[in-house]
Formats: sequence, structure tokens, C-alpha cells
Amino acid sequence: MSASLPSYDDVVQASNTLQGIAHRTPVLTSATLNARLGAQVFFKCENFQRIGAFKFRGGYNALSKLTEAQRKAGVIAFSSGNHAQAIALAARLLGVQATIVMPQDAPAAKKAATQGYGARVVDYDRQTQDREAVAHALMEQQGLTLIPPFNHPDVIAGQGTAVKELLEETGGLDALFVPLGGGGLLSGSLLAAHAISPDCAVYGVEPEAGTDGQQSLRTGEIVHIAPPSSIADGALTQALGSLTFPILRQYARDVLSVSDPQLVQALRFFAERMKMVVEPTGCLGAAAVFNEIVPVRGKRIGVVLSGGNVDISAYARYLQSA
Amino acid sequence: MSASLPSYDDVVQASNTLQGIAHRTPVLTSATLNARLGAQVFFKCENFQRIGAFKFRGGYNALSKLTEAQRKAGVIAFSSGNHAQAIALAARLLGVQATIVMPQDAPAAKKAATQGYGARVVDYDRQTQDREAVAHALMEQQGLTLIPPFNHPDVIAGQGTAVKELLEETGGLDALFVPLGGGGLLSGSLLAAHAISPDCAVYGVEPEAGTDGQQSLRTGEIVHIAPPSSIADGALTQALGSLTFPILRQYARDVLSVSDPQLVQALRFFAERMKMVVEPTGCLGAAAVFNEIVPVRGKRIGVVLSGGNVDISAYARYLQSA
Repeated sequence: MSASLPSYDDVVQASNTLQGIAHRTPVLTSATLNARLGAQVFFKCENFQRIGAFKFRGGYNALSKLTEAQRKAGVIAFSSGNHAQAIALAARLLGVQATIVMPQDAPAAKKAATQGYGARVVDYDRQTQDREAVAHALMEQQGLTLIPPFNHPDVIAGQGTAVKELLEETGGLDALFVPLGGGGLLSGSLLAAHAISPDCAVYGVEPEAGTDGQQSLRTGEIVHIAPPSSIADGALTQALGSLTFPILRQYARDVLSVSDPQLVQALRFFAERMKMVVEPTGCLGAAAVFNEIVPVRGKRIGVVLSGGNVDISAYARYLQSA
Repeated sequence: MSASLPSYDDVVQASNTLQGIAHRTPVLTSATLNARLGAQVFFKCENFQRIGAFKFRGGYNALSKLTEAQRKAGVIAFSSGNHAQAIALAARLLGVQATIVMPQDAPAAKKAATQGYGARVVDYDRQTQDREAVAHALMEQQGLTLIPPFNHPDVIAGQGTAVKELLEETGGLDALFVPLGGGGLLSGSLLAAHAISPDCAVYGVEPEAGTDGQQSLRTGEIVHIAPPSSIADGALTQALGSLTFPILRQYARDVLSVSDPQLVQALRFFAERMKMVVEPTGCLGAAAVFNEIVPVRGKRIGVVLSGGNVDISAYARYLQSA
């Protein structure tokens, strides 16, 4: 991909585009947690965003920048997760036809939710078909524009609006913890934090089963890993992108990792003490803070809760597992 | 009780008292729900209030009005629920010693939470001891001031601040749905709605297993019922109070009721679609709206979600029960 890197100006523009369309999600705190950690922690609650995750911001921003011809032809995305619903809803709001390519064995509830937003779902067989080939055939036949989940300047700029809102509300912070998959949310957050609160140390947090981000930052080049296994199903990417990696490299303080049991513990804390449903991936940043993977005492800390989309039976099991 | 009825001025005063102390809780919406009902529904999220319920507002307001001598002597409350934690936390913040009288068989977690806020917990045996006698002995020996859970003008005024905030944010509403137990939250809400949005039809909603409020409103006198059985454990009161009933009678449009399965359905909706933990009692108003017990189409509707304190194992069971 040869697109140029997005800047904070693009985040500001995205913020204007999303005005009155994306929710300005609340920033919540817990006095109990603050007392326990000896810190002030501000949670940016993207679990309350439209479609239940920050992904709506980047998806809508990217679609809003399409030319009239591109809008008429329609868009395509691969995803069985939050990106699918983000593109489906953004497309509906903008009057664009969306095609979402999902594995045949994706949960029926996810297909139904995506179709519920008016998208066309195209199945492929993981065993016998190549996802890229399926999509490229559709793109060529129908002139569809591909909207990638993270490695796209307009997607990154849109995701950065969450941290822009957070920092406008809290003022300067000492540190910020952000879930890390492909790096769309983190790189957007880095652009916003660097511009608004330049002394803020920004950390990406990934599941310890898949530390490609950490390895990439430490070796200085994009490291590809085998498909990791973690309950953080939104952060199972195998590699950062050509746009997200340079932004991480320039601005991120470090990439940390947490275990699945630490994610479940955080998920339970949010249910019991803060009365919120946060999906395992959404707990990545919080789990790093709760377990003080880096020192937090005495600091003003921001945490992005990236989403709340978790299968409700699995969620009930996590709650009962302790 | 010979105290005079509170007025909207008392709600405004309480609002000043609570400024910077109680959370100004967010008002959240669901586009999916609005489309389904053909209405605009605004949820005032008191599940995100300190201690996880609106009760903190009234408790703190009441304690803040004590004389210096009363503060020194301390306060007492009977409760194993949200009122206990509200008084315990408010007392700690104001440097007052709180004594909470709980049945010996109350859940250990609730005792621990209340003690965690620095309160002294006094047990009594439901089989052999009279709760009133236990408390009166303590009050006389130690000069403690009793803070009742709902039938107190300062408690009512404090509870009214939630709907004051809601209406300041949404502007005028056509209807408002409020959980109803002893009527503290509802009567405070009525004072606020009558002053700010006088054409708003305000409904109390109680579990259909215990419709004393409905019966009282229809017969014109306070009806006492046998202890009801419902999962709405915060609305199992047997009668309205001498202060709450006249306010309901003057301003409430009606009292509605919903079933336990309707509460579970609402609880699941909040988890799945709005990513919030709401306790069964907190779902009363919402369940009336979701089931269109009165017409809502085309209207601007407010709903108070009164709290989110639910035992996490029970909560997991509710999520799995459908």
C-alpha cells in the first residue's frame, strides 16, 4: 500500500466528519480502583460506541471520503468481527452497498447482525477457498472498493478521534493504554496524544499469545507470527501494517502484553464494579494497568476500552469462571 | 413522620450539594431500540452512579443536612441493599460513623462491601429478634440518627437530582418511566419533571408480584401488601411512605407493572446491545417501555436505570436463561 501516513490534521477532520454521527462516548472512573492503585484512571468507553466498538469511527470516516463513483459501485470488507458491522452500518448511513466476506463457519449471530445493517454477506470455505481470491474476483467483477480493517489512512484518522475526545475531557495525561491488534486504534491514538498531550507515554497492549507488535517495535521491522490463540479475538492479527507500524515506531513508548486470565479478571471487574460489558479484547489496556505492568502510582492514566461485543454465553462463562 | 413534603427547590439545593461529589451519570441511547419502537428513548444510567445506584444521591444529601451534634453522634440505617452502601459511603465522605443493621443471613459480600466503606455492621437474627427493637436500642444508647431509605424529605430531594440532570440534557420529554419500590426515586423524579417538563407523563413501574403502589394510587390510600417475591429485590417494599404517597398521588400519571421474565429480557438487552450491567430492579422502567405497556411510538421517552448491583453469579444465570 502506497498511501501516505495520516497526521493529526486528518484526525481533526475525521472528528468533524463524525460529529453528530458517532457517539461521543462517556469517560468513566472508579473511586475504588483509583484508591487501590493510588492513581487517577479515566476509561474512554468505546463499548458504548455505535455497533459496540470504536471501529465505527474509522469505517465511517473512510466511507465518507469515497468519490461519488466509488459510492455507487459499493465497498467490500473481510471480517467476521467488529469491522464487518462497522462497515455495514457506515455504508447504510451513507447509502452505499456493502459486501462483507466471512468464513462459512462464522457465528450465525454475527452474519445476522451484519445483514441486519443491510450488508450483503458472502461466505467462503476456509478449507477450500482463498479469501483474497474470493474478494478480488468480486472487486474486479463489480468494481468494489476494499476497506481494510486497519492499514488505511482514513481508518486510522477515524480511530484517533476517540483519544482526541478523551484528552479534551481529561486534559493532559501521564500515560495512555490502548488495545493493539493491527494497530489502527493505537496509531490513531498516538497521533491524537502526540498533538494534545505530547508528554503522555502511550502503550499498546496485546495478548501475550501474540506479541508481534512488541517484537516488531523491538526489532525495528514488522514481525509476522503464526495465528495466535487468545480470548482477545479482536487482537489476533499476525502483523502490523505498513502504515500503522511507522506511527507506532515513531510515537509509542512500548508494547506490553497480558494473559487471558488477566483479561477475564479485568472483564469481571468491569461487570462487578463499573457495571459495564467489555469484550476481552477491550480489556487489554485495562489489564496492563490493573496488573501494574508498568508503574502507575501517582499518575493520571487514560485507558481505551475498545469494545463490548462478546457472545453472551461466553460472557456468562467468564463471569462464572472465577 | 411529621416532616413536611419536599419541593423542587429542595431538589435544586440537593443538586448543588451533590455537585462534584455524585457522578453526573451519562444519558445513553440505542439506535436499534429507537428504530424498533419508533420512539426516542433516553436512558439515565444510575448504574454508573457511585456505589452502583441512585441511592447515593439521597443518602449523601440527607447526611449533609445533619447538625454538627448529629454528625458527631453518628447515623444508623437498616438495609442489606443499596441503601446500606449509600449511607456507608456518604458517611465516610462526611466523616460520620455509620451503623448498618443487617439480617445475620445477608450475603457475606454485601456485609464486606458495606464494611469496606468503613461502616459498622450490626447483625440481627430474623427468627428471634425484632429489627426495630435492635435499632431503637442502639439509637437510644448512642444517640444515633436514623436515615430511612425513602420516606425522608432530604432523601427524596437527593433522588430527584437524577431526573433533573436527565431533563437538562434531553430537554422536554413526553413520558418518563421510573422504578418504584418505596417511592423515594419516583417522588423525587416527579418533583423534577413537574418543574422542568410539566407536560411529561411520569409512570412508576413495580414488579407485578407486588403492586402496592398501583393499588394505593387507584384506591387513594396507602395499601399494605404481604412481602412480594420477585427478582426485583430493590422493589419489594410492602407500602409507600407518608411523604412519597402524596407526591405520587399529586403528580404520577399511573403506576404500571412488569413480570420477572420481562425484567430478564430487558437485562439481557442491556448486556447484549448497550453493554451495560443493570440489576433487575433497575430494569423496571425499561421493561415497561420495551413491552409497550403504554403507547410509546412517536414519543420522546426518558427511562431511569436505577442501579447495577446484582450478584454476579445470578447475573450470569440470567444471561444464560434465554
